[in-house]
Amino acid sequence: MPVNLSQPIKKNIFSIPGISLGTIESGIKYANRKDLTLILLDEGSIVAGVFTKNQFLAAPVKVAKYHLSSGSNKRALLINTGSANAGTGDVGIDNAKQTCHALAQILNISENQVLPFSTGVIMTDLPVGKIIDSLDPLIKNVGPANWVDAAIAIMTTDTVPKASSTSTIIEGNEVKVTGISKGSGMINPNMATMLAFIGTDANINEAMLKEITREVCDESFNKITVDGDTSTNDSFVITATRQSNHPQITKKNASYARLKEALLEVAGFLSKAIVRDGEGATKFIEIIIEQGIDEQDCQKVGKSIANSPLVKTAFFASDPNLGRIMAAIGNAPIGSIDVSLIDIYLNDILFAQQGFAAPAFTEIMGKEEMKKDEICLKVVMGRGQFNSSVWTSDLSYDYVKINAEYRT
Amino acid sequence: MPVNLSQPIKKNIFSIPGISLGTIESGIKYANRKDLTLILLDEGSIVAGVFTKNQFLAAPVKVAKYHLSSGSNKRALLINTGSANAGTGDVGIDNAKQTCHALAQILNISENQVLPFSTGVIMTDLPVGKIIDSLDPLIKNVGPANWVDAAIAIMTTDTVPKASSTSTIIEGNEVKVTGISKGSGMINPNMATMLAFIGTDANINEAMLKEITREVCDESFNKITVDGDTSTNDSFVITATRQSNHPQITKKNASYARLKEALLEVAGFLSKAIVRDGEGATKFIEIIIEQGIDEQDCQKVGKSIANSPLVKTAFFASDPNLGRIMAAIGNAPIGSIDVSLIDIYLNDILFAQQGFAAPAFTEIMGKEEMKKDEICLKVVMGRGQFNSSVWTSDLSYDYVKINAEYRT
Repeated sequence: MPVNLSQPIKKNIFSIPGISLGTIESGIKYANRKDLTLILLDEGSIVAGVFTKNQFLAAPVKVAKYHLSSGSNKRALLINTGSANAGTGDVGIDNAKQTCHALAQILNISENQVLPFSTGVIMTDLPVGKIIDSLDPLIKNVGPANWVDAAIAIMTTDTVPKASSTSTIIEGNEVKVTGISKGSGMINPNMATMLAFIGTDANINEAMLKEITREVCDESFNKITVDGDTSTNDSFVITATRQSNHPQITKKNASYARLKEALLEVAGFLSKAIVRDGEGATKFIEIIIEQGIDEQDCQKVGKSIANSPLVKTAFFASDPNLGRIMAAIGNAPIGSIDVSLIDIYLNDILFAQQGFAAPAFTEIMGKEEMKKDEICLKVVMGRGQFNSSVWTSDLSYDYVKINAEYRT
Repeated sequence: MPVNLSQPIKKNIFSIPGISLGTIESGIKYANRKDLTLILLDEGSIVAGVFTKNQFLAAPVKVAKYHLSSGSNKRALLINTGSANAGTGDVGIDNAKQTCHALAQILNISENQVLPFSTGVIMTDLPVGKIIDSLDPLIKNVGPANWVDAAIAIMTTDTVPKASSTSTIIEGNEVKVTGISKGSGMINPNMATMLAFIGTDANINEAMLKEITREVCDESFNKITVDGDTSTNDSFVITATRQSNHPQITKKNASYARLKEALLEVAGFLSKAIVRDGEGATKFIEIIIEQGIDEQDCQKVGKSIANSPLVKTAFFASDPNLGRIMAAIGNAPIGSIDVSLIDIYLNDILFAQQGFAAPAFTEIMGKEEMKKDEICLKVVMGRGQFNSSVWTSDLSYDYVKINAEYRT
C-alpha cells in the first residue's frame, strides 16, 4: 500500500502542446501488458536529461547520452518495460540502436533524434523484433491526452501510476508542465528502477534547459532514497516543445525562476511519489537538515540518516530512537561535527537539544509522533547557513519480502 | 541462530601469563546478570587500541583514548554492559573517569592506567555508584582462567559468547594469544556494539604493538559489516604482558610476522564470529575482491556489495542475482570500472565472465550454491594487483524484527 498516494485523475493531467503519446502491448516479457511507450515531440522541441551515476550504464542510457551529445533537437522517446537492456554489452547497444533506427525510418527523422529508455530485468537481451514489429501500430495510437496511459505502461513493481501537472504564467502566456515517473525503491537494479519524463511547452534555449534540468533534478529526484543505491538505468528527462508564446528564456531571469518553480512542483510530486510507493514503505519521512556548511554537507547528513537500516527499522517500529539517529549523524562523511550545537525536531516537538535528549521530551510523546504515516525529522546542525532535505521511507518486513521473493 | 558458531570450550581457551579476569553482577540494567568485567594486567604490560570512526565518540572511548595518550603502560580494563555511556556529554566523561579513579585507588595505580569500556543503550547515564560499589568484590573474583566468563559478561544482543585462543613459537619460546569479542550487528548503536580484547604474553615494544594492532584490526574487524554502520563505542584492544622469554620485538622482522599471524588467527575468528552471530543472519558470506588497484579499492567494491540491501536480501532468498551484484559493483565509489574485465565466482563456479553471465552458468546451479550457509563470492576486477576480502551476513526478516522490536 503506497503512503498517501492515489491514482492520478485523467482530467487533472494536462496535455502539452507539441507532445503526443502512445502505448502498446508488444509482448516483451508478459502477455496482455502495455510495455512499449512512444512520446512524440513536434519539430522545434528540445530535450535535456540527467542519468544514473552507476558506472554500469545500461545500453539505452549510453545510446541516449550519445544521441544527446549531437544536439538537443529530439523528436521521439521510446520506452520499454520488461527488459532493462543492462549488462548486455555491445549486443545491447546494437539492439537499442536498432530500435531507434527503425523508428527513425518510419518517422522520417534521423536516428539520433530518438532517445531509447528501458526498464525491467537486468542482463536479458532486448527482444528487438517484437519492438520493431510494434512500431507501426504504436505510432497510430498516439494522442496528446495519453499521459496517464503512458504512466501506466512504464510501471514495473510500482503499485500506482505516477503523473502530475501544473501550469504557470510567464510574461502573460500560459505555460504547462506535465510529468510521469516510475520507480518503487530508488534502487532495485533488477528492475532497473527510476525513469521520469517531464514535458512543457515553455520556450527556452538549449543551454538553459540543460541547466534547469540539472537544478530541478538536484532538488527533487536527487533528494530521494529508499535503500541508498542507484540503478543502472535511472534517467530523468525534461522536454520543452517551446510552443508557448512568451519570449524565449535565455538566461536565469524571472521567467527562468517561474518555470523552475512549475517544473519543481511536478518533479517534487513525482519523486516523492516514488518514495510513497517505495518497496514495503509504511511511512513517508522528510529529513530536513538546517544550518549545514553547504548543500552537499546537508545532503550527506540527511542521506546518512535516511540510509541507516537501524533508523529505518526504528521508523517502521514507531520507535523514537534518538540514539540511532545521533549515531547515523556521527557516521556522515563530513568534517568534524560539534554535537553540542545540534538540535533535532520530531515533527513539531523538540527531540534533542544541544546534542542531548530534550528535557521536555517523553517517550510517549515521541511514540505518538512516530506512529504517523507522514513524519518530518529536522536536524539543526549549527555549523553553517545552508538547508536541504531528503525524502525516504521506512524499512519493513515487506521490503525484505518483496526483494527476497522477486524475480523467479 | 548463529551461522556455524558454537559455544567456546573452556579448556581450549588458554590463560595468558600476566592477565587475570573477573566478572560480577552490579545491577546496571538487569538483575541476575553479570554486567561488569575487570581485566587486570601485570606491571610491564602494554596496551594498544583502535577505536570507532563514528564522530560521536562515547565517553569511555574518549577517556580510553586520553589515557592511552599518556603512554601504553596500563594495568586494568574495566568493561560494563547495560549502558553505553554514549551521548551523555560532560557528565558521561566525569562518570567514566570516576570509575577509573575509584579502581585506581583500590589497586594503588594511577587513574590513567585504567581503560574504561561501555556497551549497552545509548543516551542513558552510567550508574557510577553501582559500579564503584562492586569493585571490591570484583577484584576478589579475578583469576587467569576466566576468559570465557568475561566473554559471557560482555555480551548484549549476542546469542553466543565469542572467545578464541592460539599459540605460536617465537625464537624458541611459546607465545599465547587469547581474545574475546562481543557484537551482533556491526552497527547497533543502541546497543553500542562491538568490543574486542586480545591478550598475549608476547614481548613487544610500544611502537610495534601500536603498529601490529592497527594492521591486525585492518585485516579482521575492519573487514566485517553487517549493516554498514559504525557504532559510537566500537573498540579493539590488544594487550601484551611481555612475559614470554623471546627477545623483544622492536621491528617488523620474522618474529613480528609470526606474532601477527597468531593475532590474526584469533582476531579473524572473533570478527567472523560477530558476523556469524549477526542480527537475523542465516548465512555467512565472504566477498573476495581480487586484482584491485590497492587494498582500499578492493574494500570499497567489497563493502558496496556487502552493504547493498538488495544483494543481502538476494542472499537470504538464495537467489543467484547477478544483476544486483553487478549494480552494486557499479555503485562502488572508485574510479572508472571496465566491466568487460570482471569475472565473478560463486563458490567454485564461474558466475560472470568478462562482465556477462558465464555461458555454462545455470540458474539451478546458482540456486544450489546460494542455498549453502557458507558462501564465497569472488570478484576478479582485472584492474590491479591487490586482493582483499569482506565478511558479511544476509538481510532477513529477523533483522527487521530484531531491530524493530528491540529497546522498549
